[in-house]
Amino acid sequence: MDTTQTMNRDETQDMISSEKVDGTAVYGRDGERIGSVHHLMIGKRDGKVRHAIVSYGGFLGLGEDYFPLPWNELTYDEGRGGYVVNRDAEHLRGGPRYQRDQEPTWDRSYDDRITGYYGTR
Amino acid sequence: MDTTQTMNRDETQDMISSEKVDGTAVYGRDGERIGSVHHLMIGKRDGKVRHAIVSYGGFLGLGEDYFPLPWNELTYDEGRGGYVVNRDAEHLRGGPRYQRDQEPTWDRSYDDRITGYYGTR
Repeated sequence: MDTTQTMNRDETQDMISSEKVDGTAVYGRDGERIGSVHHLMIGKRDGKVRHAIVSYGGFLGLGEDYFPLPWNELTYDEGRGGYVVNRDAEHLRGGPRYQRDQEPTWDRSYDDRITGYYGTR
Repeated sequence: MDTTQTMNRDETQDMISSEKVDGTAVYGRDGERIGSVHHLMIGKRDGKVRHAIVSYGGFLGLGEDYFPLPWNELTYDEGRGGYVVNRDAEHLRGGPRYQRDQEPTWDRSYDDRITGYYGTR
């Protein structure tokens, strides 16, 4: 309880709020701000966050589509106050995406497509 | 792929959106609507949803405080379109709570207090 007083308050927290994650900036590997987290997708059975739904805005001409990124692709950077994704632009551009008003069916097959593309599980 | 067509679309989904969880109604064991989920708290290390932060509104005179409920206390009821909490009012009333503008420190000790109170882990 003594040392934590001088620490950044966020560093003492074991949990984060879904409210705070939504809207948090996403940075590319070169440090450029490339978009933000819009919301999260959570596994119904295990209660685990599976994907961050990222909007890249005007970045790379990707418009307002939603790009699901496996949660473990995002590393929080205290200094920047945002998530860093260690992928190059080309790779992000080619990832699975959907239009805002055309929500996919979040079943195993779509999940496999996302994790398959990013090579994570 | 064949049988799912006649199912409620939500039932075919393995994942839920944090966007949809926020604002979802919470029902007590007697079927009365007692409040709604405001947001979720997520473990930083394992990416697991730990608690739903529930606002009971005017229920039981609980005002606008936030009550953290362990995520596994909530069971989704397709028919009602909301979460059911199988606890009596007395127990909910006595649970850990905080005022909206007085966010607690989400460390191990506070987590233990919540799970200890509800007898879950």
